[in-house]
Amino acid sequence: MTDLWQNAMDHAVALARKAGSVSVCLSFCLFIGEESVAAGEPCVLTDNPTWIVDPVDGTTNFVHGYPFVAVSIGFAVNRKLEFGVVYSCIEDKMYTARKGQGAFCNGQLLNVSDQKEISQSIIATEFGSNRDTEVVDKIFSSMRKILCLPIHGIRGVGTAATNMCLVASGCVEAYYEIGIHCWDIAAGAIIVTEAGGVLMDVDGGPLDLMSRRVVAANNKIIAERIVKEIDAFTPLRDDASTETED
Amino acid sequence: MTDLWQNAMDHAVALARKAGSVSVCLSFCLFIGEESVAAGEPCVLTDNPTWIVDPVDGTTNFVHGYPFVAVSIGFAVNRKLEFGVVYSCIEDKMYTARKGQGAFCNGQLLNVSDQKEISQSIIATEFGSNRDTEVVDKIFSSMRKILCLPIHGIRGVGTAATNMCLVASGCVEAYYEIGIHCWDIAAGAIIVTEAGGVLMDVDGGPLDLMSRRVVAANNKIIAERIVKEIDAFTPLRDDASTETED
Repeated sequence: MTDLWQNAMDHAVALARKAGSVSVCLSFCLFIGEESVAAGEPCVLTDNPTWIVDPVDGTTNFVHGYPFVAVSIGFAVNRKLEFGVVYSCIEDKMYTARKGQGAFCNGQLLNVSDQKEISQSIIATEFGSNRDTEVVDKIFSSMRKILCLPIHGIRGVGTAATNMCLVASGCVEAYYEIGIHCWDIAAGAIIVTEAGGVLMDVDGGPLDLMSRRVVAANNKIIAERIVKEIDAFTPLRDDASTETED
Repeated sequence: MTDLWQNAMDHAVALARKAGSVSVCLSFCLFIGEESVAAGEPCVLTDNPTWIVDPVDGTTNFVHGYPFVAVSIGFAVNRKLEFGVVYSCIEDKMYTARKGQGAFCNGQLLNVSDQKEISQSIIATEFGSNRDTEVVDKIFSSMRKILCLPIHGIRGVGTAATNMCLVASGCVEAYYEIGIHCWDIAAGAIIVTEAGGVLMDVDGGPLDLMSRRVVAANNKIIAERIVKEIDAFTPLRDDASTETED
């Protein structure tokens, strides 16, 4: 198991370094990542070419040896994603998508599920890391309403990036979560749409990458059905500090 | 993906057939399995040597292509498990344990986590397939209390057999569920204990394989801590019809 984690970390480090190097070469590129934001760098999505990176998505899994850890690398120009790469390290699955060119896993074309009946669906979500009573209330309330629509089941592997790739792969019909960050979902977002899926906010409006809320689904019917059951709340935006500085 | 599922099913069929053949050769062996019970065969654990088999644990996953499906084969003599085999088909992980000889995954020795702090733990469980209000109430209530102890997170891969192997592997500290069947957990039970873990009922008493309730944990401290938070209920026992016939 130790070797696996070392392997995962080596991949994460190498990929993050690569993205950093390319940014340095292309000095007009900006960089948004969990680690850089934690170090005080701004988290702002402009029209400039921008890397949106999470070297280790699924930190809790990583710490525990739970077998889902992902490297997530998105690249946006004019605030639109141009390509995305999610590497699910332990599974050794490399998900890739480039705008207009489809989504792939280890080179195989991905397609979302064609299911239109919510009662025949699996929905992915997570409990998240926030334990505030009001937040936990809403998370449990949403999950319960969705489970009892009824649906086939609720799943979640503990990383947003991989959950989104499971939508793209057709293994689950949809994934929703409130509280994630832009670096968790940027790469997954274009992988989902290139596999034929849809993205929206948990209130049914358009996805806002900085809002920390996401619904990714195989189609609009399933997305809009679960949106009806989600008790939405509004976490502090990823670009909140930047906005304050304006 | 189709090839993977075919591969999984081929393994399940081959292993179930093998178990059946051995039973036929050793005519004193009994057989308990989801399919045989569904076909009207008795579900009773006696002192006789008995195979307890689930050819496909994680049927919902299987149908959806969600990447956790397991073949679970346990063997009990005098109502005690002698050995257990769980094959997590898509991961290609073969978990094995024989009484007194340790537990292994693909030949590598397994050890449960040494964590004693519930606040540093991941707990696995499932929502299950029962959508009755009273059952869902208790499942959500238990999950919420455990999540807010607090713990690091709740996980669950959608198969009891694999969840138990995750306890044995040290990836999660514990797994509990009410509503599972003996064929889901028999093999996993000995894999957990041979990896150094403990088993108990959700009320803290000894595990009863036919009761459809299980707590599998890395140690007694973690097991007893989560037992305090579980809102227990009592599904119809696996051997209920047999008892009625007595």
